[in-house]
Amino acid sequence: MSEYTGYDGNSLEFLKTNKISIGDSVKILADITYSGIIMPRYEHNDDKHIVLKLKSGYNVGLEISKITEIKKESSSEKIIEQNKEILKNEKLPNILLLSTGGTIASKIDYRTGAVTPVLTAEELNSSVPELAKIANMDTKVLFSEYSENIMPEHWLKIAETVKEYSNSDYSGIVIAHGTDTMHYTSSYLSFSLAGFPIPIALVGSQRSSDRASSDAALNLIGATKFLTECKVNGVYISMHQDENDETISCHIGTRVRKNHTSKRGAFQTVGDDPAFLIVNDQIHNNLKTEFFTTDQFEPKIEINEKVALVKYYPGYDPDMLKNIIDAGHKAIIFEGTGLGHIGKNMYPIVKMANEKGIFMGMTSQCVDGRVRMTVYESGRDLLDLGIVPLENMIPEVAVVKAMWATGNTENCEEIKEIMLNKIASEFST
Amino acid sequence: MSEYTGYDGNSLEFLKTNKISIGDSVKILADITYSGIIMPRYEHNDDKHIVLKLKSGYNVGLEISKITEIKKESSSEKIIEQNKEILKNEKLPNILLLSTGGTIASKIDYRTGAVTPVLTAEELNSSVPELAKIANMDTKVLFSEYSENIMPEHWLKIAETVKEYSNSDYSGIVIAHGTDTMHYTSSYLSFSLAGFPIPIALVGSQRSSDRASSDAALNLIGATKFLTECKVNGVYISMHQDENDETISCHIGTRVRKNHTSKRGAFQTVGDDPAFLIVNDQIHNNLKTEFFTTDQFEPKIEINEKVALVKYYPGYDPDMLKNIIDAGHKAIIFEGTGLGHIGKNMYPIVKMANEKGIFMGMTSQCVDGRVRMTVYESGRDLLDLGIVPLENMIPEVAVVKAMWATGNTENCEEIKEIMLNKIASEFST
Repeated sequence: MSEYTGYDGNSLEFLKTNKISIGDSVKILADITYSGIIMPRYEHNDDKHIVLKLKSGYNVGLEISKITEIKKESSSEKIIEQNKEILKNEKLPNILLLSTGGTIASKIDYRTGAVTPVLTAEELNSSVPELAKIANMDTKVLFSEYSENIMPEHWLKIAETVKEYSNSDYSGIVIAHGTDTMHYTSSYLSFSLAGFPIPIALVGSQRSSDRASSDAALNLIGATKFLTECKVNGVYISMHQDENDETISCHIGTRVRKNHTSKRGAFQTVGDDPAFLIVNDQIHNNLKTEFFTTDQFEPKIEINEKVALVKYYPGYDPDMLKNIIDAGHKAIIFEGTGLGHIGKNMYPIVKMANEKGIFMGMTSQCVDGRVRMTVYESGRDLLDLGIVPLENMIPEVAVVKAMWATGNTENCEEIKEIMLNKIASEFST
Repeated sequence: MSEYTGYDGNSLEFLKTNKISIGDSVKILADITYSGIIMPRYEHNDDKHIVLKLKSGYNVGLEISKITEIKKESSSEKIIEQNKEILKNEKLPNILLLSTGGTIASKIDYRTGAVTPVLTAEELNSSVPELAKIANMDTKVLFSEYSENIMPEHWLKIAETVKEYSNSDYSGIVIAHGTDTMHYTSSYLSFSLAGFPIPIALVGSQRSSDRASSDAALNLIGATKFLTECKVNGVYISMHQDENDETISCHIGTRVRKNHTSKRGAFQTVGDDPAFLIVNDQIHNNLKTEFFTTDQFEPKIEINEKVALVKYYPGYDPDMLKNIIDAGHKAIIFEGTGLGHIGKNMYPIVKMANEKGIFMGMTSQCVDGRVRMTVYESGRDLLDLGIVPLENMIPEVAVVKAMWATGNTENCEEIKEIMLNKIASEFST
């Protein structure tokens, strides 16, 4: 990394003129006064801003035209990290840690405060020393993406890697992942790897590891404890239960949503308690049934991305649905209102989709509760038009399951059967 | 209503053959045994089912080909309702009740169990006699629609009626409304009638009034008490707080979601307590600021429906966004992931939308919490591409506000200013 990585044009000139480099601690006078460390930049096509990591741990972009003064407070020196060779402890279980990116899988360059997504076993061990007392950790970097950029092709790559370890001596697999779309990935893995005999826990962090309030280490420790002791299989998401550092929740990977943009306890099991709670060294098991319906591991990892999620709202233009049909989508998941409704102005296009053999499933934008399409005429009309009620499947899970189902068969009746059959705890009682 | 209303073809023949009419109590043997009352039908194009109102109060559609036996238990007789003339009590405040449809605004025909959406003051008074002790109720039927069929044109009709009463002697206005899209309607009224000097409460019910567990009467009583005593203005939603019959919540109409498909306490204020709680005769005020930013009532009721809500998910096809642009939409509200992100594969089309002067606003599918697009590079890239972060505005509210904003101006900068200015408590602190 150079002392100006990512800066060019006006912003580069601004830094040079003021004799400021990446990693310098500065005080900046603009609309208010900011103190922090100048960060490298990775964005495209912008030379109007510089990026500052505040003491709170957050990065902010400051428009250089609005900066009236910038003062260097100190030039930080690089702290040389010590890498120690780790010896395996034969008495401890082995855990595989796969990294896909996100804050959790990141390492801090102490000179710049920059978070770089490279994680090795040694670095992990030195940053979270408690792990070495729980398990022998092997790590593998799959790719490094913010989770908003994780696409179905990345899901495939994860599944292809994980499926190779079904007969390994690992007690569990941790997948470090950005939090934004972690629940979509956990859903895909739940379906594609149904019956996988080793427990899998996806772990993220809501706050970067250089913040005092970071949840990264505790989430990782919690997940690792869980995997070594849970004695069940399934795909889970392990994150803080709330703002305290006492409890880690392990959520069923097909029953969980990110329900808050920034809180550490952002992930919640919809309509139920989490499957497991890890409180210090205690594991509380709330899992009511086997995670997978099958105990035969026969991976089916194919996906068809031609699936649309349609969230209905008053004024939704039925022509948008027509465009979805015309674009060759194989399945449509409606996020309807209440018990599973959409306006009657949608009926002609819904009829058209049904006639074309497109699978249509109904979920509710209420998030919690069950669709029931037999209660009102609207629902019964939609049943007649071929829409399949998906019980209490979460919309985000339904769209992933439909991508996976249409990846495995093109037959609409088979897709319907797959969508309604419980495979990986995606329906709850 | 005839003894076969809505039945024809096979289902009509089935009823006639078995000497069963609408309103008869029957026992039906199919996959399981059902007991209930035969209901009239209002659906289109289906002669395969008959509709039964179960003792639980729910209607079910039963496929006649699967019925092995139907037995008449009794032919109910019509109970003649008594209409009493209501005299105004000069000491009580006056309340206007507007009815738009939905279960709350319905009246039961005791012969058939059919819910018909006709409501007069006399009928209301005889079904909820407590109301006459709280206020003099005038009623007006605007239309009768399931709320999934309420469109922006219906919002206009409500606003046009309500705005005529700004100088009336009513202490408040109750709007009876189906629950499915009640929060969309309350948002529209909040913006279009900003500064309206009389409090408005939308009221619905989750269970039809012939169920023992119906919430209709208590919600109506709670809303009426609230309007006569609250001494504030604004647009609220009054519904059960939970499964108990003790507490009615009054939610700010722009900060509320229907979060459960069937529970009586389905409505929740996002990220906060409800603005008011009505516990028996006590009103607890939790309203932190004035509901409206302005106290000048200058109605602006125009709407432009060319606004799209785009919920992002991994695999979302950017071409769908291109179709939205090509269809002439004036604004796009993204329901992004986490702090307000969408995948980088969307950038080229987002850039195109920006160049066409389409307003783009960012909300989060997390529902709770605030978008913050300065934290990560993805967010900063999207800011550069012209997407406007909408703080903690709820996606459903943002799409309604954008319809209203684009109805009032075509200038993208003005739309942006309107979207970011707090008008009716749509942002919370």
